[in-house]
Amino acid sequence: MSFGLEVCLSPALLPSYTLAGKTVVVTDVLRATSTMSVILQQGAECIVPVTTVEEARNLGKKGWLAAAERNGQKAEGFHYGNSPFDYLGHNLIGCKLVMTTTNGTRALAAAANAADHVLCGAFVNLHAVADAVKSLGKDCLVLCAGWKDNFNIEDSLFAGALAKALAPDFSLRCDAGLAVSGLWSIAQDDLFGYIKASSHFNRLERLHIEEDVRFCMTLNSQQAVPVLENDALIAWKSSNDSTR
Amino acid sequence: MSFGLEVCLSPALLPSYTLAGKTVVVTDVLRATSTMSVILQQGAECIVPVTTVEEARNLGKKGWLAAAERNGQKAEGFHYGNSPFDYLGHNLIGCKLVMTTTNGTRALAAAANAADHVLCGAFVNLHAVADAVKSLGKDCLVLCAGWKDNFNIEDSLFAGALAKALAPDFSLRCDAGLAVSGLWSIAQDDLFGYIKASSHFNRLERLHIEEDVRFCMTLNSQQAVPVLENDALIAWKSSNDSTR
Repeated sequence: MSFGLEVCLSPALLPSYTLAGKTVVVTDVLRATSTMSVILQQGAECIVPVTTVEEARNLGKKGWLAAAERNGQKAEGFHYGNSPFDYLGHNLIGCKLVMTTTNGTRALAAAANAADHVLCGAFVNLHAVADAVKSLGKDCLVLCAGWKDNFNIEDSLFAGALAKALAPDFSLRCDAGLAVSGLWSIAQDDLFGYIKASSHFNRLERLHIEEDVRFCMTLNSQQAVPVLENDALIAWKSSNDSTR
Repeated sequence: MSFGLEVCLSPALLPSYTLAGKTVVVTDVLRATSTMSVILQQGAECIVPVTTVEEARNLGKKGWLAAAERNGQKAEGFHYGNSPFDYLGHNLIGCKLVMTTTNGTRALAAAANAADHVLCGAFVNLHAVADAVKSLGKDCLVLCAGWKDNFNIEDSLFAGALAKALAPDFSLRCDAGLAVSGLWSIAQDDLFGYIKASSHFNRLERLHIEEDVRFCMTLNSQQAVPVLENDALIAWKSSNDSTR
């Protein structure tokens, strides 16, 4: 049996899609969903994604680790942002985090209540996400977080990479899926070089985070797949399958 | 001097773009903007694009040729739809048409009041459109009509073809431009074969209009470039440049 795979290129296009009955993979490659995988891999108990900096600040005052990013930079007054290097090598076992980012957490909020399962995917956990999607055994929608509701190239490329990793069990059911698969076939041999031509990379370059970009463009360094359970992201285990 | 080129993949994404000061090329390859080029090439004086079937019907009662398409088919009670074969070989010299289509005329309405110039582009008039855009000498935004606010492959491929035709005078200023250029590089050698894999083609195939698709995927059969002037599309002449 073959499942369906759709790709939504921006949260602004989401009203055209049905989420009920599906696994939704939210992707914000640079850098939210890459970093969320790192945080859970480092042992954090959960990440609560929130849409405003104020919500993050309030939970921070209650003793949570609080992370906030706006426009590519750490928000004022926060020790943690959305760089994977804020967390790599840190022992986060048992920690609870609250996190808000420009695009990623907004996309999560858009999918949260409508989909059967919501996972976070990125190049760093590509194969682990593909395994989780296959294990869940439902039609899948990849939701690209984009950049302030605009199309971006790195999230679309991830959608193409996931489509390839899910084939032939999942087959493309929309033109956007066809397009991102084509893009992935062009870019896969030199992902970092391809991304360097993108508008987002130029923006990130000005922020001096080339190291972050290289990390986020490297495949399968992480195993943790964030899955949304009761408004918090926890590390997916195959047994999560039956909890919703 | 190099001008900027942006690509908007769906009318739903248009709020993120600035239209003022730019030439906007609206594309609805299957079939509205292809057919609009044919209609003006056949000598029609003008096409008034309207968003509702009722508006088209009302002008039809006043003696205009009235064309209406919804969901890929001629609307009930209309002799003309959006198939190029409704018009090819007909003498339309001096005729005034009113036209409404599912996606193309909505995209035109979205761009009408905000852009400096609004042109209609398709594969059938690709080179003529590129010449007009160069002659106008302003930054350019390609607006893909899509399918009911969703991304579609054929409009995106046209945007990629136009980007190539405008290079190096116009340089890409957004990730969507990079993406459609990549798609065009994949598809250009077998455009019809590539389109056959798309969701829209399957929809069109059920309507038995493969002949229309083949016509719309053939490059440069037409010279007429529809340009919006006072709510009507007329054939662009280089002298139109100074009329707005």
